[in-house]
Amino acid sequence: MLSLPPALNDLIHQLKRLPGIGPKAAERLALSLVRWDPAEVAKMGSALTDAADRVSDCPVCGCLSQDGDECAVCSDPGRSSSVLCVVETSLDAVAMERGGGYTGRYHVLGGALSPVKGVLPEDLRIDELLKRVEAEGVTEVIVATNASPDGEATALYLKQELADSGVSMTRLARGLPSGSQLDYADAATLQSALEHRTEL
Amino acid sequence: MLSLPPALNDLIHQLKRLPGIGPKAAERLALSLVRWDPAEVAKMGSALTDAADRVSDCPVCGCLSQDGDECAVCSDPGRSSSVLCVVETSLDAVAMERGGGYTGRYHVLGGALSPVKGVLPEDLRIDELLKRVEAEGVTEVIVATNASPDGEATALYLKQELADSGVSMTRLARGLPSGSQLDYADAATLQSALEHRTEL
Repeated sequence: MLSLPPALNDLIHQLKRLPGIGPKAAERLALSLVRWDPAEVAKMGSALTDAADRVSDCPVCGCLSQDGDECAVCSDPGRSSSVLCVVETSLDAVAMERGGGYTGRYHVLGGALSPVKGVLPEDLRIDELLKRVEAEGVTEVIVATNASPDGEATALYLKQELADSGVSMTRLARGLPSGSQLDYADAATLQSALEHRTEL
Repeated sequence: MLSLPPALNDLIHQLKRLPGIGPKAAERLALSLVRWDPAEVAKMGSALTDAADRVSDCPVCGCLSQDGDECAVCSDPGRSSSVLCVVETSLDAVAMERGGGYTGRYHVLGGALSPVKGVLPEDLRIDELLKRVEAEGVTEVIVATNASPDGEATALYLKQELADSGVSMTRLARGLPSGSQLDYADAATLQSALEHRTEL
């Protein structure tokens, strides 16, 4: 009986382990890869092992970094250490930087509280946050968790935990996204935008 | 400014080159991969280069094979060489084998004719097919191209090309898929099923 060559089946089996890649997608990717120039596949292979070997978490803020070094923000003396922006993941910090204009530092929680998914306070980098707030003379903590129920719950939990520290706590504004049309906005967004309306 | 570590960006850049993987999906895959055990990543890397180095096309039928060998069907003396099933891709041959019951050999065209996509007869393995039909004493060619406009056009083209060869040409039956419900069948399928109805 004809079946796929073992080397191809191995690759499909490996690709299936990636998140969001099912059996059919793995098959499509593997078939495309075996048609590549071997030199290009070698590049992909070395990018893979290189990333796995070198990418690490910044020992200070938890952002993605390389070779165990501090990340670009933590190692930049120009960034203010009195303002700390708390995000769920490294990618959120990268997104904040894309916006530009933020001159403080970051703290990555590593997720959001979710009793349903079994994510409890001890699973997040909350102790590290409390220690940093005390040690680095932080005066403002900007909570930039997602605008989702889990993100909201995490923000409220952090507010409680930092209540006695005397630090000022803010969170990102809620309202209409830039460039959006009013009649496409959902009810919750419109309600937030109305509630937090600003002087014209 | 904070950005992703270069090793991670490299990996994302490589993953984006895969079919169906956009910038966001590449980011998600790369972030998942750098959290893997390095030994597991090494396995993925070696599966990748191994597949690229070893997977080849069967020199006879064009099915996927390994190390330049003939495929399992072509190297099986028990398979009849008088019946040839013409498929668009190797995966189609694997699907036919899954059905079981077919004891002839295969011929992979490498796609279907599509003037719109620029796929012309000389881009497919049609010359090889004509040569095999003559050389291997084939008596029946089963055209198993997809039931799509391109697949149909390819089947008609093959019929013309093989008209003088005296070989009997058949194609896979059209009708209701096994286990399907009549009221969910599309109009074209129902029409085919009615047209090609068989004695009960």
